[in-house]
Amino acid sequence: MAVKVYGPTYASPKRVLMCLIEKEIDFEVVLLDIFKGDHKDPEFLKLQPFGQLPLVQDGDYTLYESRAIIRYYAEKYKSQGTDLLGKTIEDRGLVEQWLEVEAQHFHPPIYDLVLHVLFAPVLGTPSDAKVIRESEEKLGKVLDIYEDRLSKSKYLAGDFFSLADLSHLPFGHYLMNQMKKGYMVRDRKHVSAWWDDISNRPSWNRVLQLYQYPI
Amino acid sequence: MAVKVYGPTYASPKRVLMCLIEKEIDFEVVLLDIFKGDHKDPEFLKLQPFGQLPLVQDGDYTLYESRAIIRYYAEKYKSQGTDLLGKTIEDRGLVEQWLEVEAQHFHPPIYDLVLHVLFAPVLGTPSDAKVIRESEEKLGKVLDIYEDRLSKSKYLAGDFFSLADLSHLPFGHYLMNQMKKGYMVRDRKHVSAWWDDISNRPSWNRVLQLYQYPI
Repeated sequence: MAVKVYGPTYASPKRVLMCLIEKEIDFEVVLLDIFKGDHKDPEFLKLQPFGQLPLVQDGDYTLYESRAIIRYYAEKYKSQGTDLLGKTIEDRGLVEQWLEVEAQHFHPPIYDLVLHVLFAPVLGTPSDAKVIRESEEKLGKVLDIYEDRLSKSKYLAGDFFSLADLSHLPFGHYLMNQMKKGYMVRDRKHVSAWWDDISNRPSWNRVLQLYQYPI
Repeated sequence: MAVKVYGPTYASPKRVLMCLIEKEIDFEVVLLDIFKGDHKDPEFLKLQPFGQLPLVQDGDYTLYESRAIIRYYAEKYKSQGTDLLGKTIEDRGLVEQWLEVEAQHFHPPIYDLVLHVLFAPVLGTPSDAKVIRESEEKLGKVLDIYEDRLSKSKYLAGDFFSLADLSHLPFGHYLMNQMKKGYMVRDRKHVSAWWDDISNRPSWNRVLQLYQYPI
């Protein structure tokens, strides 16, 4: 039975889609329109009480939080498709570390940038220039640490592509494209080479071709 | 060789200490004083470029980010001490989901509360009444979802204690004790019973006895 992925056009569900493609797992999608409030629908809230995307249904098993879902499939199908957790338990420890860095350090400022630069004008919410300036500054400091790390290893967790790299693509894409802030990546030689490597994976290009971003 | 844990008195390192005790793994500690800036020392930054706690050194293996560290030890010593990941891969999926809920939904508002209620007066930074009010409101909504979940299963990921529950203790302790906001837990019957259960584990009491909070 194919895995059902809710909300494929949005950024966070793209983590899940890319993971499923890398792991060669069949999936189908359920389209939702958050601009029409589909994520606050009582039937959806029964499955995802926080009213957020993505959500997957796999038979009678339901899971939410994109970084939990990708861990689940990467482990369940460890030997199928691309290995996204590394070879050893120490590799996986580093994958977990950099996945946490993505979630705790990279994501908050880039999310605020996306919200204030791209979504505010569409949603009619205030766009705060101070938040934009501070978020860009914070993100720059994080990318400086990435630059140092990527001068020593090809990918974040080591010399293998993993969930930790994959997790950066959906919001990194906003930075490089819709937000026109690609200089933040291009000004850093090793981050730039890493971005080219991960964003040119066929799996990511398939995600982009199949499910256009809503903004 | 014992695992070296940096910064045992602070909140996030307590996740690691409790996990190591539950897993019956020997450890020793390295005391740091963040009020004196030990976490910004160049030698420390070589190990942890973000300048945050905790950090562990295990022989020549170094790892940071508390939730990555606890995943690493829970998996590496799966069959030793308490099993903190559940029996099946589906159990672990739910552990990951609720660990992400802790990190993404529970932690941000409770962290802001700790910062503005407890740390601001000590650090001499501004304490913002609006942030305090909004954070408490956000945390309340999260705990409403927990109340519903915990009316259906004894622990967050199912009927077994896991990393997902454990991860709430260090900042939950601040809420119940130093911040005197225990009513947020006590007003919710199932959350209250769950809190009593997890905070009465001998491992947590040992952490509290060994390493007093700095504030």
